[in-house]
Amino acid sequence: MMNLVYYRKKEGKMYDKNNVFAKILRGEIPNKTVYSDDNVLAFYDVAPRAKVHVLVIPRGEYTDIFDFTQNAPADAQVAFWCGVRKTVEKLGLRDNFRTVANTGRGAGQSVMHFHIHIMSDERFTEDF
Amino acid sequence: MMNLVYYRKKEGKMYDKNNVFAKILRGEIPNKTVYSDDNVLAFYDVAPRAKVHVLVIPRGEYTDIFDFTQNAPADAQVAFWCGVRKTVEKLGLRDNFRTVANTGRGAGQSVMHFHIHIMSDERFTEDF
Repeated sequence: MMNLVYYRKKEGKMYDKNNVFAKILRGEIPNKTVYSDDNVLAFYDVAPRAKVHVLVIPRGEYTDIFDFTQNAPADAQVAFWCGVRKTVEKLGLRDNFRTVANTGRGAGQSVMHFHIHIMSDERFTEDF
Repeated sequence: MMNLVYYRKKEGKMYDKNNVFAKILRGEIPNKTVYSDDNVLAFYDVAPRAKVHVLVIPRGEYTDIFDFTQNAPADAQVAFWCGVRKTVEKLGLRDNFRTVANTGRGAGQSVMHFHIHIMSDERFTEDF
């Protein structure tokens, strides 16, 4: 029965409250914040793979974009994307950024808390 | 004054009603549809750069994710992400996909109608 506490809801994937982003949200691990509000936290990636590489995460417990768009309340979803936009504005990247979300181990997702990568680099010249 | 018809709103970027995705939405250019509803259309990319490469676009006129998250009504935003999720489900990619949106010419955006790339490929092993 112990494992059940890790399940937020029957249909959801397991959310591990000890993932690194959960620890960052609780302040147990420091972060270099770019933008923060009641719904989202945006901070620099510790291992950047582009000239600008920032992660945006919702404060709610969602494993990935699939979980988030299925289970987050409408206002939380709109607030999240608003936070992504405000982060982009703060970074001065309005017309030059890539947003990426990887979902599942097969696609390389390493932390099972939904996160959007905001990246900008002059090598991003193709639209894929 | 003529150009003003291309502006949906004062603060927005120019939306070109003759971009290729607008033509697809009007049925002027054929597409291989994966998923369709009142709010979104998902179809295979004509020049795939992954084993699975599908584009999801809102039916509304938004140039990019910045424009969309700033100006689309809340229900249209939630419906769009719901459509992305349903496309992923239909493709059987729940735990193995990458979602990408490129914004601006600097980031390689080639069609100025907001679109999300859903991609899946075994080479996507890194979380960036």
